[in-house]
Amino acid sequence: MSGQVWAHVGQPFVSTHYDLLIVGAGRMGAALARFLRETAPHLSLLLAEEGGLPNEEGASILAAGVWHTRVPQEQRQRAEDTRTLLGEALNACGLLELRPGPGIAGPGIAEVGPGFSPVSEFWIPGLEGVVDPQALPFARLDTRAGTYSAGTLALKCANAAITAGADLMLNVRAELCGLDSAGRAQVRLHRLSVTNTHEVVVDSSVNVTAGRVVVAAGAAGPHLAEVGLGAVTPHRSAYRQTPRLEVPSTPASPVLQSGGLLLRPRDGGYTVIPPAAHPDPWGYVPTGGRLVGVPVGLRRETLNAVLEVMDGLPALATEALVPGRSIADIPGAWVALPGGGWPLWEQLDAAHWLLLGGERADLTGLSVARELAEELVKAEAPSV
Amino acid sequence: MSGQVWAHVGQPFVSTHYDLLIVGAGRMGAALARFLRETAPHLSLLLAEEGGLPNEEGASILAAGVWHTRVPQEQRQRAEDTRTLLGEALNACGLLELRPGPGIAGPGIAEVGPGFSPVSEFWIPGLEGVVDPQALPFARLDTRAGTYSAGTLALKCANAAITAGADLMLNVRAELCGLDSAGRAQVRLHRLSVTNTHEVVVDSSVNVTAGRVVVAAGAAGPHLAEVGLGAVTPHRSAYRQTPRLEVPSTPASPVLQSGGLLLRPRDGGYTVIPPAAHPDPWGYVPTGGRLVGVPVGLRRETLNAVLEVMDGLPALATEALVPGRSIADIPGAWVALPGGGWPLWEQLDAAHWLLLGGERADLTGLSVARELAEELVKAEAPSV
Repeated sequence: MSGQVWAHVGQPFVSTHYDLLIVGAGRMGAALARFLRETAPHLSLLLAEEGGLPNEEGASILAAGVWHTRVPQEQRQRAEDTRTLLGEALNACGLLELRPGPGIAGPGIAEVGPGFSPVSEFWIPGLEGVVDPQALPFARLDTRAGTYSAGTLALKCANAAITAGADLMLNVRAELCGLDSAGRAQVRLHRLSVTNTHEVVVDSSVNVTAGRVVVAAGAAGPHLAEVGLGAVTPHRSAYRQTPRLEVPSTPASPVLQSGGLLLRPRDGGYTVIPPAAHPDPWGYVPTGGRLVGVPVGLRRETLNAVLEVMDGLPALATEALVPGRSIADIPGAWVALPGGGWPLWEQLDAAHWLLLGGERADLTGLSVARELAEELVKAEAPSV
Repeated sequence: MSGQVWAHVGQPFVSTHYDLLIVGAGRMGAALARFLRETAPHLSLLLAEEGGLPNEEGASILAAGVWHTRVPQEQRQRAEDTRTLLGEALNACGLLELRPGPGIAGPGIAEVGPGFSPVSEFWIPGLEGVVDPQALPFARLDTRAGTYSAGTLALKCANAAITAGADLMLNVRAELCGLDSAGRAQVRLHRLSVTNTHEVVVDSSVNVTAGRVVVAAGAAGPHLAEVGLGAVTPHRSAYRQTPRLEVPSTPASPVLQSGGLLLRPRDGGYTVIPPAAHPDPWGYVPTGGRLVGVPVGLRRETLNAVLEVMDGLPALATEALVPGRSIADIPGAWVALPGGGWPLWEQLDAAHWLLLGGERADLTGLSVARELAEELVKAEAPSV
């Protein structure tokens, strides 16, 4: 039997307890909900999401959605499991790594497949509009790599969970209030509505308890855990922009990689995915930079990342790159930077867990969500 | 014969050309001026500083001023030269590295001197107020390490340069205007004054030419070079706070190190020097964080650095640590993060050089400034 969905504040909500409550229906939280319904259908489950499905301000909807084989040995199994779980969702377009020389990969990255060859061996029509083969004469094709939509994946997982009996509440902000005397998590759900002037306000609030709570709120998760539970974690976040490059692509075009930057075919063009950023400091307000003196929507750090690979990818130096005029013009979101760099889960206290994806959720996110589902089912629920 | 000093706008300035112009009289610029007077007294030299001597907003005055032997092999000679150049300015109080285990140093750091021993071997009165020997049972004493005042060093170098004939202009903002047809650098000097309402305004501006210009403006240097010359560099910057720890120290107390954090004896207490930060993004406005919900002057990243070592240095968990109430309460400055992490100089065009120190200017700054002085004297001046 399908679960209930509360999409707006007009729908009354009378539940007071769930066995499991997941905060955040991005790709990590939604995947966890799906796996929990599969492994523990007897446990009642509420998936609570601050925005819509998908959350337009979340990182899932802007994720690169690029799976590839270039992962360190200790993440290999998770990456392979994730690829299996992606199944049909993966468009196996391949990933073409481009290099100025035939050198090997950096430290910590295991070599997979053949070495680098002259780029001419992989040359396909369309590349001439993006790549300068003089500047990047060597290449390697990762044929198992591919693309998928992390936003669609989140949506499908959430739908599968609901079909399998999970409840979903949208437009609700969860406040963690610690444990009650019975060891259950106390959560205050603030149901949000939008005024005529587009202001988000709390319409009403309701207290629920849960046997176990998983915070899967992306970049906001560690802060939520800290404010609500006093749990200080080493995880950070960064504001990542993914500008558009208006150079033709087809669904068969491979993802292009040079330095740490990816060009990801999407909707007949490319999305520019800058490399893993440094964490941004607490209190940073994303700000557009300047390009030859003119204010643009790309932040300075995004511009730097583009400048670094511009010689080899001269399309980035043309008007095909959409720089915007202010920060609001460029797709961007706060993305979690989990300590250690890879998706993870960790237990915060007797009834709370943290689930964090970040940008490498593309590679191992589904597998890590499934691991946590198994762990939660193994862990004994507090007696009610 | 001593050079001229223009401290305020009331003093007329009529010069139109210098052989050498240095932008910034922090420790790097002032040291360069000193070495240039020693090696090339025949070349006319102007040292231009936006603030006073020392600049109260610059990084030199807040620098840790800690020299130690833990440098990678390729920087060893520069570090030794810097120690020699520091001479009497160095207070050889030693540096006590504290560790939870006897393990060796991280990658890229050559081992120097003996390994770690039980901390009891180095125990001295006063440590019990700072260090928990249970949490940090191993230690190593770097007996050649010591402290000095980078602000005083800058002042002494500037004075030595002036005594040897360099001119100095304070309260002047330099604008780089490229090269003239004769290949000389064109610089516009904006002389600053302060209004009754403490606003800094440009009083008058004057154009000068210079055979060679060195930008030694600290964290602001790369931006100055980019705006004036279009020179894009990989260098970054970060806002570093150095809060006070009110635990008694004496001039003989060693510097204490745990993790990346230093406790530097100063004025009968300690200064907390957080580890090398990530670069802060362009447009970041330093903001105080929150400690158990209360707004403090320490930024979140400083708090994190303190939290990480608090177990071993429990004094940091007490009221001895001054957290302030807003960002203005805590000593802090923008510090350059040179690409590669070490002080460096580089040529920007035919007549412009960049000199960058950053936090490791403590270790090798003087040596790098002297290298650049030698390079500038070797380089042939453009014909005038």
